[in-house]
Amino acid sequence: MTGFTFRIAATDGAARTGEITTPRGAVRTPAFMPVGTAGTVKAITMDRVRALGADIILGNTYHLMLRPGAERLAALGGLHAFANWPGPILTDSGGFQVMSLAKLREIDEDGVTFQSHLDGSRHRLTPERSLEIQALIGSDIRMQLDECIALPAGPGEVERAMRLSLTWAERSRRAFAGGEAALFGIVQGGDVAALRVACAEALAAIGFDGYAIGGLAVGEPQATMLAMIEASAPALPPDRPRYLMGVGTPDDVVQAVARGIDMFDCVLPTRGGRHGVAYTRFGKLNLKNARHADDPRPLDEASDCPAARDYQRAYLHHLVKSGEMLGAMLLTEVNLAYYQSLMAGLRAAIAAGRLADFIAEVREGWARGDIAPRK
Amino acid sequence: MTGFTFRIAATDGAARTGEITTPRGAVRTPAFMPVGTAGTVKAITMDRVRALGADIILGNTYHLMLRPGAERLAALGGLHAFANWPGPILTDSGGFQVMSLAKLREIDEDGVTFQSHLDGSRHRLTPERSLEIQALIGSDIRMQLDECIALPAGPGEVERAMRLSLTWAERSRRAFAGGEAALFGIVQGGDVAALRVACAEALAAIGFDGYAIGGLAVGEPQATMLAMIEASAPALPPDRPRYLMGVGTPDDVVQAVARGIDMFDCVLPTRGGRHGVAYTRFGKLNLKNARHADDPRPLDEASDCPAARDYQRAYLHHLVKSGEMLGAMLLTEVNLAYYQSLMAGLRAAIAAGRLADFIAEVREGWARGDIAPRK
Repeated sequence: MTGFTFRIAATDGAARTGEITTPRGAVRTPAFMPVGTAGTVKAITMDRVRALGADIILGNTYHLMLRPGAERLAALGGLHAFANWPGPILTDSGGFQVMSLAKLREIDEDGVTFQSHLDGSRHRLTPERSLEIQALIGSDIRMQLDECIALPAGPGEVERAMRLSLTWAERSRRAFAGGEAALFGIVQGGDVAALRVACAEALAAIGFDGYAIGGLAVGEPQATMLAMIEASAPALPPDRPRYLMGVGTPDDVVQAVARGIDMFDCVLPTRGGRHGVAYTRFGKLNLKNARHADDPRPLDEASDCPAARDYQRAYLHHLVKSGEMLGAMLLTEVNLAYYQSLMAGLRAAIAAGRLADFIAEVREGWARGDIAPRK
Repeated sequence: MTGFTFRIAATDGAARTGEITTPRGAVRTPAFMPVGTAGTVKAITMDRVRALGADIILGNTYHLMLRPGAERLAALGGLHAFANWPGPILTDSGGFQVMSLAKLREIDEDGVTFQSHLDGSRHRLTPERSLEIQALIGSDIRMQLDECIALPAGPGEVERAMRLSLTWAERSRRAFAGGEAALFGIVQGGDVAALRVACAEALAAIGFDGYAIGGLAVGEPQATMLAMIEASAPALPPDRPRYLMGVGTPDDVVQAVARGIDMFDCVLPTRGGRHGVAYTRFGKLNLKNARHADDPRPLDEASDCPAARDYQRAYLHHLVKSGEMLGAMLLTEVNLAYYQSLMAGLRAAIAAGRLADFIAEVREGWARGDIAPRK
């Protein structure tokens, strides 16, 4: 594999800041990857995704293989050309959505067979086919197929799924054609620290370009998630990026960065934006709430984001209540801007050796909460 | 009334090009006004509406009086502040949507009582209340309340509605507080040329800042619409702007400009954009069509509009088929860009005295049709 590097510029405790380079551009870490589900970060143009601070986006292999289809996507020049995003793209393996969205899935040692949630058509994913699809999509960072189980689960079930995922990790490593793309392995092991450590060590022995921690943020308490990061991260090669899959709230992100995580993806800012939810320096708020109906003040007058700074709360409330697309568009901007500004703040704080102070400051803002309703 | 002027810079046959000035900015004519229904031009930000060439937008009094409500809007600083559009705004009277959307409407000599299509609440519009609401909205150009009937209708019914609208025109003129806003009268008279002429002359005798032609594009043939314009326009004061309400297709617009119309509004570009329809130099096309599924070419590689120039047809097809908001967002941009470029072309052609040639050229493009499907 050429063209993929990771350089740590500074550390602060377990936290690191640095840069991943790919042939399609650099990714400042810790990085938040907006979720580009089916070839679009929902309700926003890629120009704006970039302008708000994203260096890399995530694409969902499950969605893309079903529509428009991996072979079609390859014929169209791959996802970068299709979605008009020239920068780095990470694709997941498809496994998570097979478990959460597909119908009639049957898992075996070799892979998983499932029916599309769109039209019921039958499909099969194996570690090898997942990587083949990701190569057709043309992503820059590719993930091994794994089995992600729901928590809570018995320790026997957790270990079985972890062992299967490790087998698939080995097959993925062998099947990976490489070129200029990178391949990440995924640490599984549920909420059992010893299994997480064993999995991380086994993956490190196989050797990947980066390592993800999967199977978290699936309903377990935050403390469990953080304990699993604390178990896994030290067992992973320190010079390789660590990616916490599907996480999370702003506080989850901050806590995970402090424990050595370099990459994140999550639908919260974009999904929230389509449901009236805004994330700001002062926490999470819901624009559907009638308290905003007569309030001409913006969400955050000090924000650099026009959507947060230049629009009345009353207007955002009106758009959300009226089901107007512009409400989703503006709140998606607000939320992605906030997440990216949080990442920029984390990077600067780690570089300056003041991460603990920065975390205390952002938590103070969240604790203050939103401005009081207008008299 | 101060602050509202209309200057004709050049004519070509019956067509005119010039400029309306309002205290909130100038409007180059002939002008196309994107429809800002309920305080938002659907699926696009006002920054983009402006960037694509709009000098003025339209707001719907019916929608705004129901939600967020006229008094609330006034308390929030009016529609300009609410919707973040600092430029000129024209509001309709509310009458058209009362007829087309409201439930249980009852019209009498004094006004119209109706139930909201949103929650069934009862409301009343009179010529005076419509202007009061438009003043609360704070629009720059306001319309008299009129009765717009469906066509075909008997000549007796057409005349009755026209006479009632004229009575309401007189009441509107008396009730109009003015300030720096302008008031337009509306020519009715259905498809009866003599009634159109009589109405136009009566309105001119009352005296308005501008004159609209209403009650067209309601299902009648284009030839009927053009005949009604040809009857009405010469009976209106030549030094005042003429606004053809709710029109129309690109060809309707071109034909009406050639007959002396200065202003237009229509939902076709925005509504079409939300339903997979694109307007380009080569006519109208539907992105839902499977012919686009494997086509990497843009809608119009020579367009100035990024949405038309930089995105694969296959991608737009995928977005539309997948119900992704970005499909509506991009096609709304494509369509508003095309309409505004058409208006710019009409203005330049009139100024250069080559309107007939320009019209022949645009019609040649439409007749050529979209590019052939890819082999």
